[in-house]
Amino acid sequence: NNYFKIAVLPGDGIGPEIISESIKILDVIAEAFQYKFQFDYGLIGAEAIFKTGNPLPDETLKICKESDAVLFGAIGDPAFDNNPEAKVRPEQGLLKLRKELGLFANIRPLKTYASLIEKSPLKREIVEGADIQIFRELVSGIYFGEKFTDPEGAYAYDICKYSREDILPIAHMAFQEAQKRNKKLTLIDKANVLDTSRLWRKICQEIASEYPDVQLDYMFVDNAAMQLIINPKQFDVILTENMFGDIISDEASVIGGSIGLLPSASVGESNALFEPIHGSYPQAKGKGIANPIASILSVAMMLDHLNLHAAANKLRQSVEHAIENKYVTIDLNSKQYYSTSEVGSFIADHI
Amino acid sequence: NNYFKIAVLPGDGIGPEIISESIKILDVIAEAFQYKFQFDYGLIGAEAIFKTGNPLPDETLKICKESDAVLFGAIGDPAFDNNPEAKVRPEQGLLKLRKELGLFANIRPLKTYASLIEKSPLKREIVEGADIQIFRELVSGIYFGEKFTDPEGAYAYDICKYSREDILPIAHMAFQEAQKRNKKLTLIDKANVLDTSRLWRKICQEIASEYPDVQLDYMFVDNAAMQLIINPKQFDVILTENMFGDIISDEASVIGGSIGLLPSASVGESNALFEPIHGSYPQAKGKGIANPIASILSVAMMLDHLNLHAAANKLRQSVEHAIENKYVTIDLNSKQYYSTSEVGSFIADHI
Ligand SMILES: CC(C)[C@H](C(=O)O)[C@@H](O)C(=O)O
Ligand SMILES: CC(C)[C@H](C(=O)O)[C@@H](O)C(=O)O
Repeated sequence: NNYFKIAVLPGDGIGPEIISESIKILDVIAEAFQYKFQFDYGLIGAEAIFKTGNPLPDETLKICKESDAVLFGAIGDPAFDNNPEAKVRPEQGLLKLRKELGLFANIRPLKTYASLIEKSPLKREIVEGADIQIFRELVSGIYFGEKFTDPEGAYAYDICKYSREDILPIAHMAFQEAQKRNKKLTLIDKANVLDTSRLWRKICQEIASEYPDVQLDYMFVDNAAMQLIINPKQFDVILTENMFGDIISDEASVIGGSIGLLPSASVGESNALFEPIHGSYPQAKGKGIANPIASILSVAMMLDHLNLHAAANKLRQSVEHAIENKYVTIDLNSKQYYSTSEVGSFIADHI
Repeated sequence: NNYFKIAVLPGDGIGPEIISESIKILDVIAEAFQYKFQFDYGLIGAEAIFKTGNPLPDETLKICKESDAVLFGAIGDPAFDNNPEAKVRPEQGLLKLRKELGLFANIRPLKTYASLIEKSPLKREIVEGADIQIFRELVSGIYFGEKFTDPEGAYAYDICKYSREDILPIAHMAFQEAQKRNKKLTLIDKANVLDTSRLWRKICQEIASEYPDVQLDYMFVDNAAMQLIINPKQFDVILTENMFGDIISDEASVIGGSIGLLPSASVGESNALFEPIHGSYPQAKGKGIANPIASILSVAMMLDHLNLHAAANKLRQSVEHAIENKYVTIDLNSKQYYSTSEVGSFIADHI
């Protein structure tokens, strides 16, 4: 099969700019490898609210469900962030999409690039060689539990809930990945305080016997937030719940020197979505300064997911070639830099 | 008044070792400044469970309620961490104590020491001069909301709840501190997802007009976890809820180079407790290698709280003298180091 339906959701802020570089790349790959990609565009987030009143229009959901993969840009708009009383919010679009597509595992690979190590706020000896894969649970926990705000504004609550079925699939996935890597899995939780964390620990303990070659460790999230900076090389595969994963994986982005480099895959039983881990970065919108690499590397993860490994590898090589030759955006080199589309074209040209 | 009742709760792991250095210091201060400290010792945590079955015996609570201040060591024991099904847990002792004493604000000052800057995993230019004060809400949120685990182990939940009354006192406290400092307050939350976070934002927005000289910013916790490492100097006073504060403040401990240096104060209407931010560090127990400085600086915060500012300042100077002269434990200098009690005595001798 070399015909693929890709749902394309540019979203808010710099989303459209980085996505158009990813499409540029996919066009070149289609040509070079004789694939055919059908791009179906959909509205989501603040853009969708402004145009339809709905952060996830039915049409968008339909396109995504029928796709072989979803390519996602970014979401979020300061008009909503600064208004705690807005009833409809851009992020609801992404959260609903994750839930509807059953994307239970968000996978974030973290590594360092030799030529960029100086960009990290951390010292070279701390980060050099760090290579971590984070598995964040994505469709349960406090994100999706019942929420309530008292109409008088006297109180509010959010419920964090996890069932055995929510935890098992991603736990198995993380163990399996650890088997393929350095055989070390760290569960990050707050089991000294939370019932849900104790359930995570219990289930991981139970299934650990199916993976006797993997060493399973536990770490409290507060300690983990410190250990990730002091000694990131101690980690191989990290498994964690939704909210802790959100915090820990953005934090861990400092290891490689720029959040603008980091891709992610969100996968479920029958759908998959690929997005950079950075946000919509509204201050940069329209300026041509956004780093397209996180989105382009998300395309590489998508190609792997579609079993187009040769193309994925070729694309990663081309990205590394751009980074090594310092053909990068301003976040990676403030002395000599290129625009979003120059970087995208450079990478496309070297495939 | 120069007579003070101090409740002393050494707790678990390295707690007793560091607390005995703090007592050594208080004895010297009593002598030098003509104060009288009455020390009432109480059991708490794993120690208390082993001896009484209760992580917070009534007697301990009574001592604390009657005290002018509580000096706390550390809590936690691996025997419980690795057993997700233990019904009675050491941490319950500390959590119950915080709640019973109404210690709604945990205050964590973070600064760098010129002679220790090389110890930080972060680059010098990133951390030099960073000076942050964190206000973490301590008696509400997901720590204290209803918790439940289904007897069959099929699911569990934890409820994060905040009321207006939970938020107002600590928010005012943080604004007031910002007024005394650089007039910048950052609320860290997840208002794009959580109802409770939106309530925090709303209340902070409301009271901001009472502090027109303070600039109030908001930051999502995932972004904050990254910004604290990329550019810690952008922060002055940080305000946040209980769980985010737990994670963020342990993470921020890397700025100064060692978590072994960081004190905290937990204050309420009529009680106050002082403890290092580090944990019970069971691997180090009994080895004489624990850094007593975090506990000793917690004593300095306690002295300030008791309005003994001259003694507090003298004590801080003596700690700085020890650090500058590299009279420190192994965590701060692995080439030449001193034991826990040698460092305590050195600081005591220079008061
Ligand atoms: C936009 C927001 C809802 C989202 C999240 O918190 O999951 C983002 O931070 C992410 O990590 O993908
Ligand atoms: C021991 C634990 C319950 C505690 C907490 O999470 O509050 C600790 O990490 C702290 O920060 O004081």
